[in-house]
Amino acid sequence: MPIFTTRRSDSVLVRGERQLIDDMRRWLGNVSPRTPFGIGDDCAVLPAVRRAQLVTTDPVIYGRHFDDSVPARAAGAKLLKRNLSDIAAMGGRPIAAVLSLALAPATSLSWLRGFYLGLAACARRHRVKVVGGDLTQAAAGFFGAFLTLHGEATGPRVVTRTGARAGDAIFTTGRLGGSRLGHHYKFIPRLPEGAWLAGQKEVVAMMDLSDGLAKDVWALTPPGLVASLDPARLPVSAAARIVAARNGRPAWEHALTDGEDYELLFVVRARGGTEGFAARWARRFRTPLHCIGQFARKLQPGHVHWESLHGYEHLR
Amino acid sequence: MPIFTTRRSDSVLVRGERQLIDDMRRWLGNVSPRTPFGIGDDCAVLPAVRRAQLVTTDPVIYGRHFDDSVPARAAGAKLLKRNLSDIAAMGGRPIAAVLSLALAPATSLSWLRGFYLGLAACARRHRVKVVGGDLTQAAAGFFGAFLTLHGEATGPRVVTRTGARAGDAIFTTGRLGGSRLGHHYKFIPRLPEGAWLAGQKEVVAMMDLSDGLAKDVWALTPPGLVASLDPARLPVSAAARIVAARNGRPAWEHALTDGEDYELLFVVRARGGTEGFAARWARRFRTPLHCIGQFARKLQPGHVHWESLHGYEHLR
Repeated sequence: MPIFTTRRSDSVLVRGERQLIDDMRRWLGNVSPRTPFGIGDDCAVLPAVRRAQLVTTDPVIYGRHFDDSVPARAAGAKLLKRNLSDIAAMGGRPIAAVLSLALAPATSLSWLRGFYLGLAACARRHRVKVVGGDLTQAAAGFFGAFLTLHGEATGPRVVTRTGARAGDAIFTTGRLGGSRLGHHYKFIPRLPEGAWLAGQKEVVAMMDLSDGLAKDVWALTPPGLVASLDPARLPVSAAARIVAARNGRPAWEHALTDGEDYELLFVVRARGGTEGFAARWARRFRTPLHCIGQFARKLQPGHVHWESLHGYEHLR
Repeated sequence: MPIFTTRRSDSVLVRGERQLIDDMRRWLGNVSPRTPFGIGDDCAVLPAVRRAQLVTTDPVIYGRHFDDSVPARAAGAKLLKRNLSDIAAMGGRPIAAVLSLALAPATSLSWLRGFYLGLAACARRHRVKVVGGDLTQAAAGFFGAFLTLHGEATGPRVVTRTGARAGDAIFTTGRLGGSRLGHHYKFIPRLPEGAWLAGQKEVVAMMDLSDGLAKDVWALTPPGLVASLDPARLPVSAAARIVAARNGRPAWEHALTDGEDYELLFVVRARGGTEGFAARWARRFRTPLHCIGQFARKLQPGHVHWESLHGYEHLR
């Protein structure tokens, strides 16, 4: 279903602002609580949280984060999942979202319904409430949904990106590089894994992979150290192998730079080895776990010069 | 200064994402706290709040909420002020913001610097921290800044839009209708007034005026009642008189529909008259206060059929 319509009867214009907000509430269903905890007042009132409070914001914009090949429901779910992945990366639990929408008058009402139903289904699955938002008309051809997600820590600590030291092992979940063949909207945010990892004392730093490992790992790397990665241990997805073969590049290189993996990248400090940690993981999760390298003073023999590669960088 | 540039050396492209985020931090200065309370991790960690927590989201989009006639600094301040006005309308105190930016590659770096300096100055004045955000490249000609503002109640209660009854008096602050001649970005959010009003037991409902009184007052009107407004008591701004005279419309009609007043509209229940309330206000504030009508079963003689007018409605 195309996002923009040429039939006025299927455009958001036939509804106008007030009716459209009513539509959105209906589409969201029980994900939209009553005012003052929900849509309809100047501010939403958030429930009190006991622990450290987390906030993240990520949009989906038509033509950038999704296109006509992505079903409307999947685009709506992706909006929330991008933000859920950030909450997972701090070891948190999601609670409530506000959504600011900027859309062209020719936005299709049936497409928008699908977008909201997909968002609502994903919110229901993760017990997130949509408590407020804003609706603004934008120029022809534009659709952007800007979500801010609130959550809280699941335990006494949140895991930040800062904390790695020389000798620490670098781990990733799942398989990398499948984004272009659909993973960018089919992924599952690693919320249970993130919450569990935040409870393990060996896990000293964590983030989610959104721009590709080659770029993202910089954010975990302390000054003076390198992230020494073993290409033979990189979990390359089957999709990445297909795309890399098409482009005549090594599969690991594609996997390092594809972006939108939404897997967890984290740092484990276990002087006696990481086997015990990996065994505990395996008892708990079926999600693949891979030790892909370590932080070191210099690159280990046979490891890749990933510094020469670039992940997805905005405005380049 | 134009928002988009034709010189690559002045575009955000010469900086790229990482350097641009560094620029933004520098422009924000002490308004940008260190990670994990600020920019640079997957989520921002918000300070704990003791009272009911408020969240609101409003954007500024080029061509809609500002144009080339508005200085860059004023556009940046307007972004925060729009959201501050929503916090004021619940009687709250602002705390922290996250900012999602979608911008064309040709966005001028010097314009963006002005936008951030204006935002930072306004944030400093209101003790708001900018704790996180997102940066996304958008199509040519697009600039949108989507801010989510967090605050907390200043006392035991927040004032919602629900609570008016027949006989209650309708008040507004300031003067209405000056938006087109510059008020839409020169306004001052009514934070001290909103916080004080939330502490007065006679104040039973409140909102801020953003789409024009004629439309906004609907949101305060209980089912079965009308907002009976006296045109002679409407505080029409001098600017509204100028614009109305140009268009050959009554000034009060323009003032009711202009939009972007960012004044407080609130409901007072004082069976013995509102003089005592107004006297307390006058001892505390220089901001003009006007009783403009009341909620009633039917329109009072000489009052306006404001239902026939329309404020600013998106997507119409």
